[in-house]
Amino acid sequence: MTESKQSTTLDRQSPASAPGRHGPLPAPAEPYDGHEAAVILERTRASVDPELRRAIDTLPDSMRRIARYHFGWEHADGSPAAGNAGKAIRPALVLTASRALGGRQSAAVGAAAAVELVHNFTLLHDDVMDRDTTRRHRPTAWTVFGDADAILAGDALQALAQRLLAEDPHPASGAAAARLAACVVELCAGQHTDTAMERRGPHEVTLDEVLAMAEAKTGALLGCACALGALYAGADEADVEALDAFGRQAGLAFQLIDDVIGIWGDPSRTGKPAGADLMARKKSLPVVAALASGTPAAADLAELYREPYEEGGLERTVLAVEQAGGRDWAQSQAADRMARAMQELSRAVPDPEAAGGLLALAEFVTRRTT
Amino acid sequence: MTESKQSTTLDRQSPASAPGRHGPLPAPAEPYDGHEAAVILERTRASVDPELRRAIDTLPDSMRRIARYHFGWEHADGSPAAGNAGKAIRPALVLTASRALGGRQSAAVGAAAAVELVHNFTLLHDDVMDRDTTRRHRPTAWTVFGDADAILAGDALQALAQRLLAEDPHPASGAAAARLAACVVELCAGQHTDTAMERRGPHEVTLDEVLAMAEAKTGALLGCACALGALYAGADEADVEALDAFGRQAGLAFQLIDDVIGIWGDPSRTGKPAGADLMARKKSLPVVAALASGTPAAADLAELYREPYEEGGLERTVLAVEQAGGRDWAQSQAADRMARAMQELSRAVPDPEAAGGLLALAEFVTRRTT
Repeated sequence: MTESKQSTTLDRQSPASAPGRHGPLPAPAEPYDGHEAAVILERTRASVDPELRRAIDTLPDSMRRIARYHFGWEHADGSPAAGNAGKAIRPALVLTASRALGGRQSAAVGAAAAVELVHNFTLLHDDVMDRDTTRRHRPTAWTVFGDADAILAGDALQALAQRLLAEDPHPASGAAAARLAACVVELCAGQHTDTAMERRGPHEVTLDEVLAMAEAKTGALLGCACALGALYAGADEADVEALDAFGRQAGLAFQLIDDVIGIWGDPSRTGKPAGADLMARKKSLPVVAALASGTPAAADLAELYREPYEEGGLERTVLAVEQAGGRDWAQSQAADRMARAMQELSRAVPDPEAAGGLLALAEFVTRRTT
Repeated sequence: MTESKQSTTLDRQSPASAPGRHGPLPAPAEPYDGHEAAVILERTRASVDPELRRAIDTLPDSMRRIARYHFGWEHADGSPAAGNAGKAIRPALVLTASRALGGRQSAAVGAAAAVELVHNFTLLHDDVMDRDTTRRHRPTAWTVFGDADAILAGDALQALAQRLLAEDPHPASGAAAARLAACVVELCAGQHTDTAMERRGPHEVTLDEVLAMAEAKTGALLGCACALGALYAGADEADVEALDAFGRQAGLAFQLIDDVIGIWGDPSRTGKPAGADLMARKKSLPVVAALASGTPAAADLAELYREPYEEGGLERTVLAVEQAGGRDWAQSQAADRMARAMQELSRAVPDPEAAGGLLALAEFVTRRTT
């Protein structure tokens, strides 16, 4: 499936892929405008999408149909759709980490696709478990095909990810497969903790628990993506671990911001109904921080989370989380996690120019709403 | 996880594992008494169970608890249980196929455990989808831990299977991982077809469809188990494919017999309520054959399958399947599939003595009720 790796679109479009060069990247001190990250993500999609489509095309009809719907390539009736397969942050981290450590980006396209397949397998399953009905502005797969088919398509995508790596002749593919499999186990444990927490009372969940859950559920795969990029660049173990830690901390920052978006984000941009996380009484990071604040607003919030919503209840809940400091806490935690991420990155990639792409991606995920 | 492969219990107990020997096996012409298969299965459990337990022990607490319950090693409250982790037919096929082609059995123990993990991942998920409440005489995992945890534990077992292979230094482990991943995709498609068929009317399903479904859902993994054994023995491609075909045909025979047991089996031995497949209106192989028979009993059966059960309905349905020839058809089909399996086996392993173990296992799965 991945045996003939030609020069990818990503390589061809980027003059930066010439050996020994890492530019043209802005120095990290320059004001952030998101342009570089947008370019990286666009180039990632251009190189990884064909690999993903090739992989999905190997599935039997029944599984392919569900996968193509989930990726936004087809409507439920099988007709072609414009496609909105997500931002491709995880595959971008694989390719950019590989490049930061001197690897050939094109060699890691299969690994990048494998990480994206794992991400999408978890989305398919999480949506079933969480009964989420909307994903990327469209009805979730289980609402269209039923629980069984969404579970099966997720299972097939996990297998496909491992098949891509097992058939990849790159010397790092075995280590990458082991690392990705270990990451899936961590993702499962994180999702378990998440669903188990939802059954507990608002005051029975600590901030440490919810941060650990977010690291397992979100940080682990972003860390794994960076570690796979490092493995494909032939990096030593210390650098692979530093890249993993960079991705984990950036992932935690990402989750903190994502939870902020889940409450205060613009539904037309997020694709989720406004305040959906609050309506579902989710113990997201800003909510747990707010509940733990000991403020009068925390008591209001606890009360609001206990009772069924009344008219105007959503607005009052949003306000209570904000007044109890949940939003400020989440944003400052995100900044703290980003600082730790930078520290890990500079350990493995001391040259700021070489680190530029990863920095840009980390900035992108944590600043995308401000 | 599998880096230090010591001599296994299976090797230590069996004088037959000395290089260049395949005995002490009865010649295939001897009357079948199930003894040899029982010995192989017992030895397989003795060598593969510790590997499985080691692998499961690497899981985080939450996932390990569900997995240990599912394997029958723990009660729901976490206290130790006597354990009934299944017959270990699939891992026995891996080890026995490897030995039949001159491989060292102990080298394939990790691969055998990986196949068993995949089998159990599919059981966990299938039970959720099929709403089956009993497995191996115990409540299924989803009835104890909920759907979400059963799905997650299944996901984790699939990942663990791939991790075992990715960390296995054996030269065949990469090819085995690719083959096992491809097999998982086929299993998913088979389960999809199975659940989709249940939504169709009794006369809208053909025998060919239901046979193809059974090959994907059951034959594929038994074929894969044999193929992995061949890969670990360093067999050439033709022999790997012949062993896969042997396992597929034996698997189809197994499924035919399993469906017979699902209707006429002794609940105290099967661990399933009597006639559960009929109560659930499953379009199992004997039922579809009976419906397609054009006999008066077929018309009775179609009528019984359309209406809610009345008093005595189960007994009348069992009788109708039998009178319409469903049982005879399934048993003769099973014999036919076994003949094809033998043909494939003799292609790859012409020496009857070397093929003895695989023959004994194939006989075991198809004769275990007669």
